[in-house]
Amino acid sequence: MEFKVQSLKIKAGKYKVVLNNHDAIELGVRGGDRVLLKDHMFLTAIVETGDMIPIGTVGVYQECCEKLGDQCPLTIELIPTSKPNSVGFIKKMMDHQKLTQEEIRQIVQDIVRENLTEVEMSAFVTSSYIYGMTSDEIEWLTRAMIDSGEKIEFNTHPIMDKHSIGGVPGNKISLLVVPIIAANGLLIPKTSSRAITGAAGTADLMEVLAPVEFTADEIKNITEKVGGVIAWGGATNIAPADDKLIRVEYPLSIDPRCQLLASIMAKKGAVGADCVVIDIPVGIGTKVPTLDDGKKLARDLIELGERLGMKVECAMTYGASPVGRTIGPAIEVREALKVLETMQGPNSLIEKSTGLAGILLEMGGVATRGHGKDIAMETLRSGKAFRKLQEIIEAQGGNPNVSHTDIVTGEHRGELSSPADGYVIEFDNKRIVEIARMAGAPTDKGAGVWIHRKKGETVKKGEPLITIFADKSWKLTQALKSAEKEYPIIVEGMLLERVQTFKSI
Amino acid sequence: MEFKVQSLKIKAGKYKVVLNNHDAIELGVRGGDRVLLKDHMFLTAIVETGDMIPIGTVGVYQECCEKLGDQCPLTIELIPTSKPNSVGFIKKMMDHQKLTQEEIRQIVQDIVRENLTEVEMSAFVTSSYIYGMTSDEIEWLTRAMIDSGEKIEFNTHPIMDKHSIGGVPGNKISLLVVPIIAANGLLIPKTSSRAITGAAGTADLMEVLAPVEFTADEIKNITEKVGGVIAWGGATNIAPADDKLIRVEYPLSIDPRCQLLASIMAKKGAVGADCVVIDIPVGIGTKVPTLDDGKKLARDLIELGERLGMKVECAMTYGASPVGRTIGPAIEVREALKVLETMQGPNSLIEKSTGLAGILLEMGGVATRGHGKDIAMETLRSGKAFRKLQEIIEAQGGNPNVSHTDIVTGEHRGELSSPADGYVIEFDNKRIVEIARMAGAPTDKGAGVWIHRKKGETVKKGEPLITIFADKSWKLTQALKSAEKEYPIIVEGMLLERVQTFKSI
Repeated sequence: MEFKVQSLKIKAGKYKVVLNNHDAIELGVRGGDRVLLKDHMFLTAIVETGDMIPIGTVGVYQECCEKLGDQCPLTIELIPTSKPNSVGFIKKMMDHQKLTQEEIRQIVQDIVRENLTEVEMSAFVTSSYIYGMTSDEIEWLTRAMIDSGEKIEFNTHPIMDKHSIGGVPGNKISLLVVPIIAANGLLIPKTSSRAITGAAGTADLMEVLAPVEFTADEIKNITEKVGGVIAWGGATNIAPADDKLIRVEYPLSIDPRCQLLASIMAKKGAVGADCVVIDIPVGIGTKVPTLDDGKKLARDLIELGERLGMKVECAMTYGASPVGRTIGPAIEVREALKVLETMQGPNSLIEKSTGLAGILLEMGGVATRGHGKDIAMETLRSGKAFRKLQEIIEAQGGNPNVSHTDIVTGEHRGELSSPADGYVIEFDNKRIVEIARMAGAPTDKGAGVWIHRKKGETVKKGEPLITIFADKSWKLTQALKSAEKEYPIIVEGMLLERVQTFKSI
Repeated sequence: MEFKVQSLKIKAGKYKVVLNNHDAIELGVRGGDRVLLKDHMFLTAIVETGDMIPIGTVGVYQECCEKLGDQCPLTIELIPTSKPNSVGFIKKMMDHQKLTQEEIRQIVQDIVRENLTEVEMSAFVTSSYIYGMTSDEIEWLTRAMIDSGEKIEFNTHPIMDKHSIGGVPGNKISLLVVPIIAANGLLIPKTSSRAITGAAGTADLMEVLAPVEFTADEIKNITEKVGGVIAWGGATNIAPADDKLIRVEYPLSIDPRCQLLASIMAKKGAVGADCVVIDIPVGIGTKVPTLDDGKKLARDLIELGERLGMKVECAMTYGASPVGRTIGPAIEVREALKVLETMQGPNSLIEKSTGLAGILLEMGGVATRGHGKDIAMETLRSGKAFRKLQEIIEAQGGNPNVSHTDIVTGEHRGELSSPADGYVIEFDNKRIVEIARMAGAPTDKGAGVWIHRKKGETVKKGEPLITIFADKSWKLTQALKSAEKEYPIIVEGMLLERVQTFKSI
């Protein structure tokens, strides 16, 4: 059928058109069905229905308009067409049937090309979450994710890489690990993420010091020039399926294991990594509650690495408490730079960074087994790591002469003080992150939380437990109010709640 | 944060707003999160993000605009808020935890109020499909579906009802069953559906004779006046959750058993039915492939009925072949009316209709056990059923003096003739329905397929197998072309495909 075209000037995130209910019935399609748009070319689009579009007209979202050419045609023919094959493969998953490599490749391809509706994507993610995948399927998913985007191929080897499973606040170690590795002559093209539910991702941190948005080619060039890079993976077209899956997983608060594995290893595979160390924070509040869970995850990552030709080692780390004493972009960078410049700073940060860097130095053949951490520590202590970070900052377009004292943190500050003398007996990572986010992190770079007391430490009544930093005063107010309403840190002997009358219970 | 309001003049089907990516980050929300719209009232909306809306502006879809008042306000404050609790309950389902009655009630309520995103709805439907539900959960789901919409309460009892599981083409029996029951003094307020993937639903058929869109009150009044009604359920607000679920199930081509059960019984419960007969067509191509599957389904339906205080009986019927010889609204009505007027017509139609009506007459106490079918047959033969249907047609606003010869069928007709002498050895229900739909059914009332030969019947070369009817000539052409390309009926000895050269294999 021929339709008048109405350009909607709205992006749908997919190739989508809207038809009047009456026309949809006439054409024999329903919401979620596909039509071919026949103009000078064929384009498949997803159908929405509604009664806001007049009969005889098709509403065309921006993506379709752009694809159809500089100007949307005045009329267009619509022909009902079948759904992509991958919808049938998702149905197979729902019926707990195994998929072939080719079927998984087609699903990933359709995800990247935005050919699947939200309903179909959600069915894929939900089925993956419920049934999981076999080792073969996970390998194929990873390979499909690697192949669906840009790949970097280096001429020299080995290429080193590092990943943290996440879930522990203040985990700024990449700012130390990357320069330590690069300072020892190994290449480490680190792509990283921005915070989604956290207060600061590695990309948010690095952005305080230098631009982080680069193409795959630029990442390769910077790495070859100075040995390392800390870039935002989201700006590249490396393993792009991941971001699209997160758009569906985030609203459901799930992270299916098979997709977690594939997404980590696809990003490493796509940058050509040979040796990868993976930081698995373990403990309450992290993604990995117990050591046994951690070992299982480590085994899966190592096996998947083997299948893909990558050497993987995992380090289980203490995740129930933040790394260092800062949460939020600028104050985390300040803490990390101070360690690099002066070796002054929290033990948890120095020990964890050199520990992981040490493993990579051993894997890369720069240190003999058992001596990696010493070399990492020496690289840090000698100032070589700091000078290397300065080179990386410069190569990424930032100011290399930066010092920790230059980092500007939020001008609006407020303290939460202890209502009692005693030990810190409870420390709630999630609440701390929530408070940092309310104060503006990760968008407001100066916002965050400085932790004065961690679990097990003593505090006197009236002494500060945390200081909240914010760039905007209303955000400080909102964060403070929330912190005072429900303390993120519990001191032994402190009243948890005061019940004044029987009725208030 | 305060935003300028831009009315989008597009319906989203839900309360939705669009924010610029930058503003979403600033506000701390992502696609699928919820915001409170604070004006003279509070309204919760789902967030979409994009870069087509300017920074500082919120794009407001039509439903939100309407809710906000006659005119959209110029500015509005947005406050991030949490997702509905039902999202957490869906997550519980994904983790295979049992839900409470209250949790299920909240999910159904949020489905009906359009508070859930497509991603969340799909996760609900996919989890239901994969895990199923316990009998308790199915009962609660049914009760929640009944309570989520309008209910009819009759003063007289018993109230009779009938449902067909579907999947068999030409199943026009309600046009006979309803008047037979009503003619015997029992009340039967039948709500029915339009075809979704079929060629004609009962509502599509009845619409050839009279209007079918009524409110719950009107359905009650018509039933009390003439004993029966055949209305379109979709026009009422009876058990409205069902239509919303189908919008998600249809694109995935699934029909989770727990939702099938709940949706059937909720519609019966909501009209106050006391006695229900359920037609379960069994056979290849139907929803119930084997007798064992049919018995299992019957057991589940009877048990659910007991829990809800309804008497349910099931009849397993032959579903591998169409009922009667017609597929498509007008020609099916013509075939049914001819039986009512003259007792002339296919045995499959007369036997099935009187069989099911007989069960209802026995359940309603009008016939003693074993004699229901005889009374049904007598009601039909005597013309009482036809006169009752005329009364129902009149009460619904149609012309009661209609005869089968008045029914106008599609003026464009084409035949598919047998290429060989022999028996019909294969008869493909699905292809027949596809051809009827290509010819315009169910939207074009005159479109459909007349079946000259059913499975096991003999045919001579050149004799017609089917006649295709269409209201529009281009639809006839398209249906004929498709039928000739892939025959829906296979005659023994007929060439299935001619391979002319080795290369064409």
